[in-house]
Amino acid sequence: MKGTFITFEGCEGVGKTTQVEMLKRYLSERGRDFLFLREPGGNAVSEKIRELILTKENGEMCGRCEALLYSAARAQLIETVIRPALDAGRLVICDRFADSTYAYQGVARGLGADYVAKLNALACGDVVPDLTVFLDMAPSEAFARKGGADSSDRLESAGAQFHERVYEGYLQAADKWPERIRKVDARRSPQEVFASVLRAIAEAGISL
Amino acid sequence: MKGTFITFEGCEGVGKTTQVEMLKRYLSERGRDFLFLREPGGNAVSEKIRELILTKENGEMCGRCEALLYSAARAQLIETVIRPALDAGRLVICDRFADSTYAYQGVARGLGADYVAKLNALACGDVVPDLTVFLDMAPSEAFARKGGADSSDRLESAGAQFHERVYEGYLQAADKWPERIRKVDARRSPQEVFASVLRAIAEAGISL
Repeated sequence: MKGTFITFEGCEGVGKTTQVEMLKRYLSERGRDFLFLREPGGNAVSEKIRELILTKENGEMCGRCEALLYSAARAQLIETVIRPALDAGRLVICDRFADSTYAYQGVARGLGADYVAKLNALACGDVVPDLTVFLDMAPSEAFARKGGADSSDRLESAGAQFHERVYEGYLQAADKWPERIRKVDARRSPQEVFASVLRAIAEAGISL
Repeated sequence: MKGTFITFEGCEGVGKTTQVEMLKRYLSERGRDFLFLREPGGNAVSEKIRELILTKENGEMCGRCEALLYSAARAQLIETVIRPALDAGRLVICDRFADSTYAYQGVARGLGADYVAKLNALACGDVVPDLTVFLDMAPSEAFARKGGADSSDRLESAGAQFHERVYEGYLQAADKWPERIRKVDARRSPQEVFASVLRAIAEAGISL
């Protein structure tokens, strides 16, 4: 594939959307062609799968079913959108991709990191990001920035524990695929973080 | 798991429904408890996934997406229905299971037998049938019995080729897992075939 594939990953509240928007603006201002995608979704079939995952009326969904559904949506997005764009030499930027399933379903929901690594390989095949920017900030810090989670609230606290496991999952992924995943310290100002994002892209040999 | 899990597989038109119905009647007449299931479906989430696979309005679905969706439905059926029944010591009979994905998506649709074998392992885990009855009859014979496919009809003929590949997929599966999959010659009368089905069940050490 002649194109370039960059994905963004990170826990909630770390400024991922801000960074992605800054990159989109940066590229647009330079007249650089790119395709931006956000998972899950991006085509009719994947949107239907997304609806199915999020609809609670069907009752509890088991972890494997959920991970397989995310993977089905991803396989369809790859086949109908990502692969044709990469074949055409385009730059594709995706907000969340297979590492989200690794961190959320594999580690945080306890399905197993190995399980999801195998599943991701089946869903994605040879479509692996050239670069994954992991915006590195612990959820406890992200919560603190938002004015702090109310630790007396049991639900909020359970949520915080879940997000800590997601963070742990991302750190494991970064250890496992150090060539592909670059950690960017997200605890600084948006401008400082963005400078690091651009540096990570350049260091990966990608010219924008 | 204390229960017993029997699946039925075979190409279309080989008399699978007839044999399954004969077994259900046989068990009912003897007051034997059993749970009968037909894939895909069997619970709210899996029914929704089935609808999604069969709805053509969403456009073409890629092979991986389709196989991952079947697997998601199967994982949910296992977790919510099959595993609890087997844990409770029940006899579970399923019309089609993971070998259908192997034969249809893996071999006939060309996704790859190894690919689907790995996917089935992820979807099913340790829930593997104690016995799979493969009703063995080539699609050409099944077509001939129905009065013959019109070979001048291009579509019918393409369909026949597809079903020959499904049959090839089943034969490969039977070669790969000879301990689990028993071939039953389905070219005889329903009564003769059913006698062989009962013999295959007995030979697998399952007492009805």
